[in-house]
Amino acid sequence: MIKISCAEILCVGTELLIGDIVNTNAAFISKRLASLGINQYYQACVGDNPERLKAAVKAALSRCDLLITSGGLGPTYDDLTKETIAEVLGRELVLDERSLSRIREFFRRRGATMTDNNQKQAMIPRGAIVFDNDWGTAPGFAVEDEELGKVVIMLPGPPRELEPMFDTYVMPYLRKFASEIIVSRNIMITGLGESAVEARLRPLMQAALNPTVAPYCKEGEVRLRVTAKAKTYEEGLRMCDEMVERIRATDVGQYIYGIDIDLEHAVVDTLRSLGLTLGTAESCTGGQIASRIVDVAGCSDVFVGSVVAYSNDVKVKLLGVSPDTLKKYGAVSEETAREMASGIVSRLGCDVGLATTGIAGPGGGTPEKPVGLVYVACAYRGNITVDRLTLSGTREHIRRLSSNRALKMALEVVKS
Amino acid sequence: MIKISCAEILCVGTELLIGDIVNTNAAFISKRLASLGINQYYQACVGDNPERLKAAVKAALSRCDLLITSGGLGPTYDDLTKETIAEVLGRELVLDERSLSRIREFFRRRGATMTDNNQKQAMIPRGAIVFDNDWGTAPGFAVEDEELGKVVIMLPGPPRELEPMFDTYVMPYLRKFASEIIVSRNIMITGLGESAVEARLRPLMQAALNPTVAPYCKEGEVRLRVTAKAKTYEEGLRMCDEMVERIRATDVGQYIYGIDIDLEHAVVDTLRSLGLTLGTAESCTGGQIASRIVDVAGCSDVFVGSVVAYSNDVKVKLLGVSPDTLKKYGAVSEETAREMASGIVSRLGCDVGLATTGIAGPGGGTPEKPVGLVYVACAYRGNITVDRLTLSGTREHIRRLSSNRALKMALEVVKS
Repeated sequence: MIKISCAEILCVGTELLIGDIVNTNAAFISKRLASLGINQYYQACVGDNPERLKAAVKAALSRCDLLITSGGLGPTYDDLTKETIAEVLGRELVLDERSLSRIREFFRRRGATMTDNNQKQAMIPRGAIVFDNDWGTAPGFAVEDEELGKVVIMLPGPPRELEPMFDTYVMPYLRKFASEIIVSRNIMITGLGESAVEARLRPLMQAALNPTVAPYCKEGEVRLRVTAKAKTYEEGLRMCDEMVERIRATDVGQYIYGIDIDLEHAVVDTLRSLGLTLGTAESCTGGQIASRIVDVAGCSDVFVGSVVAYSNDVKVKLLGVSPDTLKKYGAVSEETAREMASGIVSRLGCDVGLATTGIAGPGGGTPEKPVGLVYVACAYRGNITVDRLTLSGTREHIRRLSSNRALKMALEVVKS
Repeated sequence: MIKISCAEILCVGTELLIGDIVNTNAAFISKRLASLGINQYYQACVGDNPERLKAAVKAALSRCDLLITSGGLGPTYDDLTKETIAEVLGRELVLDERSLSRIREFFRRRGATMTDNNQKQAMIPRGAIVFDNDWGTAPGFAVEDEELGKVVIMLPGPPRELEPMFDTYVMPYLRKFASEIIVSRNIMITGLGESAVEARLRPLMQAALNPTVAPYCKEGEVRLRVTAKAKTYEEGLRMCDEMVERIRATDVGQYIYGIDIDLEHAVVDTLRSLGLTLGTAESCTGGQIASRIVDVAGCSDVFVGSVVAYSNDVKVKLLGVSPDTLKKYGAVSEETAREMASGIVSRLGCDVGLATTGIAGPGGGTPEKPVGLVYVACAYRGNITVDRLTLSGTREHIRRLSSNRALKMALEVVKS
């Protein structure tokens, strides 16, 4: 069998070179290759030009054992990845009957007419291993060249086709080449900063060689990534899970809100398991917390609704914030945040009420209440918890960090 | 002066090769180069490894006149783009006093301690043209090698530093090399599909060679991109604007909602100019319309607030939807959408009320009311407009298209 020690990704498409699309395929494939322990030293993009594509393919094959291309498998005359690479590898293109009937079926189901050039998509290099396209028309495929000792995989460009095809068909195919598997789990942490996590776990992290344990911080969220190298996926997963349990047993354990989960899913899952419902009262976040919760499919048994109270008038009318409070302390104050949180609970009859009020900027700041001052409150069982945040960055960033903090607060409050 | 006919981008960083980050820098820089009429045939990524970086730089310089790198200018030992490229070009690194004092000032302002390795960031290849970093520490710079006839520009990796540095300093620098400038304007259209736009403008589009006019469609939004080639930016802009006026004078004109603007900014600008206020009542969009409006800085004179009525109970309590309507027609119905829209207007006292109710999926669909069925309503001056949408795609996509439709409806309704 061909031995794969290093891979390259070559993305084909003029739209990449003029900046019309961001190359998410390279990051997607890279992450998967890393998980298989397959190294990558170069990546490249090239336009829909046969000469330059040929040069890029030859250069890549001189450096790596596995070349993965994306793009250029479409039905039009300027889609020529397959034709060009088949020529480099000296393979003719043959009709794959199975792919042809799948493409016919794709058009039939949509009531659309299949044109002649769609038939071109069913042509594959002789002897190639086909990856069915259950999400579009062009199949992907792998060509194994035993003589060169190289594997070339060609995949369609649209991420909505490439991504599920990769996970469904390419990953199982590639596993046979992987001598070791890399498995990661992310321990999600709330209520403890990155340096505090590091300080508490330093001896454990330094001693951990396989799996390794490393802290990451992004948009105010801290996670510990546990990464194991193993012979099989199952063994790697078991090694990771043992480490997760060891970390759960330390004094960081109480700050773990989930494994491999984002905040909005963790909130929905946790509240559902406790039989609790949630509502939000949002000023500076402007509906972002609600929208993130509604991103979670099936959230309706937990999430009841939200009042986005951008104006003071709405804070009074729909949340029952006292005009005196607004006058005395201002809209951006601990007192207003408290009344917004308790207001949403009483108005919606939900169990947990989250509230935000702050100055997201860039305008609207004063010396006493600068841009980035945000109050986040959570009402639950008659108690109200309030946090005062002093954030910096863009309007977008301040709003994102504020909704993160609110979601975390919901988790902390119901667990305490 | 060095003549630049083609460029390459080389992004440096192991994090790209393991898929930890998506390469947005390449798309950003590509778009700018395209606007300058500078062609690009290849792009590459390489890790923080001096030997492979050197090989990639040499390969790129053998093909192009302008090489732009991003990344590897940080303070740590594995940041070595500058050192490696200076070696390839045979230039020594010298201390740039101006950059050093700027870095000192950066730390002073933040009350942080500057470490010795930050001083490394002030070292630049002798004779390089410095691009100040007003957004971080590492300056960018251009090295002009008259002998080779090549220009190498090195920029810091973080997009929040690279992007403003490019627009502020690199674009003016590069304009001197551009023999022709490419200027684009985007005509934003609502209420007319891509094929209808094309049918009405086909003769004009086919005859238009400079500027060209091409339709684009993304997430249900249609735009016409007008692209002119000219000697100067001003001339290109004038050519574009003349074409924009010609298109405004056609029967597509009435569907144009703005030039180079997104929907949320167009809604805020339009409503502000008419002195109108806005509120939203959201079910399936779950606060997304509100959150998009709040993305617009200074929206508070237009946007008053929103009720995210995810449960029927909230639709009744906070929006005054009649329980009989919900019982008779269901939550996802034209009647409920109407009552939500009029409810938000009467409860918030705003001029324009937008409402959405639908089934975003993946669950919750029935044969009569399948996933993707969405009603969008807009109340204004006692009238209520309702659209029934039958969308397909993911939950995320259905929600996005629904909020697009709602924002467009607000524009259409207040303009009619």
